[in-house]
Amino acid sequence: MLRAAARAGRVVFGASDVAVADPRAEPTVVDALKRAAREDALVVLAVPLPAVEEVLRLVAEHAPDCLLTDVVSVKEPVADAVARRLPGARYAGGHPMAGRSASGWDAGTAELFDGAAWVVATEEDTSPEAWRAAVELALDCGAQVVPTTAREHDAAVARISHLPHLLAAVLAATGAEGGALALSLAAGSFSDGTRVMGTRPELVLAMCEGNRGPLLDAVDDALGRLGAARGSLASTGGLAATVRAGHEARQALEDLRNAGSEEIPVDLTDPEAFETLRDLGTAGGRVLRLDGNMAIGALPG
Amino acid sequence: MLRAAARAGRVVFGASDVAVADPRAEPTVVDALKRAAREDALVVLAVPLPAVEEVLRLVAEHAPDCLLTDVVSVKEPVADAVARRLPGARYAGGHPMAGRSASGWDAGTAELFDGAAWVVATEEDTSPEAWRAAVELALDCGAQVVPTTAREHDAAVARISHLPHLLAAVLAATGAEGGALALSLAAGSFSDGTRVMGTRPELVLAMCEGNRGPLLDAVDDALGRLGAARGSLASTGGLAATVRAGHEARQALEDLRNAGSEEIPVDLTDPEAFETLRDLGTAGGRVLRLDGNMAIGALPG
Repeated sequence: MLRAAARAGRVVFGASDVAVADPRAEPTVVDALKRAAREDALVVLAVPLPAVEEVLRLVAEHAPDCLLTDVVSVKEPVADAVARRLPGARYAGGHPMAGRSASGWDAGTAELFDGAAWVVATEEDTSPEAWRAAVELALDCGAQVVPTTAREHDAAVARISHLPHLLAAVLAATGAEGGALALSLAAGSFSDGTRVMGTRPELVLAMCEGNRGPLLDAVDDALGRLGAARGSLASTGGLAATVRAGHEARQALEDLRNAGSEEIPVDLTDPEAFETLRDLGTAGGRVLRLDGNMAIGALPG
Repeated sequence: MLRAAARAGRVVFGASDVAVADPRAEPTVVDALKRAAREDALVVLAVPLPAVEEVLRLVAEHAPDCLLTDVVSVKEPVADAVARRLPGARYAGGHPMAGRSASGWDAGTAELFDGAAWVVATEEDTSPEAWRAAVELALDCGAQVVPTTAREHDAAVARISHLPHLLAAVLAATGAEGGALALSLAAGSFSDGTRVMGTRPELVLAMCEGNRGPLLDAVDDALGRLGAARGSLASTGGLAATVRAGHEARQALEDLRNAGSEEIPVDLTDPEAFETLRDLGTAGGRVLRLDGNMAIGALPG
């Protein structure tokens, strides 16, 4: 994100608990926060969920008045932590939907977010200044903004990000149980279906365990569907309902990606602007740019 | 396969029940089989499992003495059908582990099999002439040969090909249940995990339903693992066992692919040659080339 924001010409600096050889790296997180307070910078939390509390403690101490956003993969737990640690903070949560199975500083690129969805939490009580700052950051990084609530975000990513990681883990282990012969025969379907298991387990765990309730719902849905397929295969030998539903769902994904788009301007001074923006997000739409007090959205169709 | 074999300089011809504008296409399957009988060609069945019986009936009528192989995705049902329809046939089953989610004549390329695993059934009673012909075809197409039994093949592909398709169907449907918002947020993990659901449902069904017994075993294994993950997430909130097992399994796949290899020559005139070759397959090894009466294998390590 540092690289992507720099590409857009923004002044960026940061700190990591891992030594990073980059001129934009401050020696410590406290140094970075003190500088943020001096320069009235937007503070972006870019840590796994288990580290959020500790970093928020430092923000509360060293940069409590800065605009605040984050790029953590769940939104309700972070919003709760912000409300506890920094009541009154001007905060809008964020989550860019882009990543690589490789981890660490060297795995990032300035192009990572180009065209990607970047959720910005758009609740009734979201600070408009923080919302605008988070949206500008996302757009500067090349992403498109999906406005929605923390709750709806967490339910959605359980299905399209956390469940895929869990199913990839189950698939990888079930395949490896077939021994070297099975792995030697593995081609595209197994490779693709297990790719995300190349990610460091700590990151996957932080992400999935941090979204426990919504992930349980998604896992139950998947268990029900897999159990139904099992029952049908055992009793009638048929899998048509499962495979056709899967094919149609994949088609829906491709249709959404290939859809044209209709531009929808939303006046941000309208008291119902956030509600309109959430409806846009629910319908699969995104904010493409800001133009003064207008957010220019696009709906697939 | 026609294109890949032609690239190696082989004379190839074929027939399809779909009109194909290619000079190598005979007007009908019967024409192709009559020509095969005249020219003493190797006959390759390249149809989905449900069509095998009908094509074998035509082979028995028009080209019963030709060497026979196939590229169908399950091996025991095809071997059973050959034993019923063409008892005494010189047959060695085959299965190239390569494919694309796009289907049809135009989706094929001569390079599809380069470096891929191509199973050739290597049973005690496999015809040595048919085995050699099937291995030569696979090697000419650019593939590496994995020698194993029909039974071991079917158990392995249930885990690394048919289960991935079923999990992709379950994942796609569970994701789409989250509506347009969820699909709009879907990134790499969901895209990769559902890619194979772009395939025509008829092909997926023929493949999965044709391997019912081994696929039930694999699905039960996956259901057990996913259920255990669900239980752990619900009770302790932890997914470490699931995610670490998945990460290690994915690592085992990458290790196997990146392993160096030790060449193992196998004398095909040795009465125990097929047993030696099956052991090679079980250990994740492949046959790289034939050299007179020697099969040159490679073991990862």
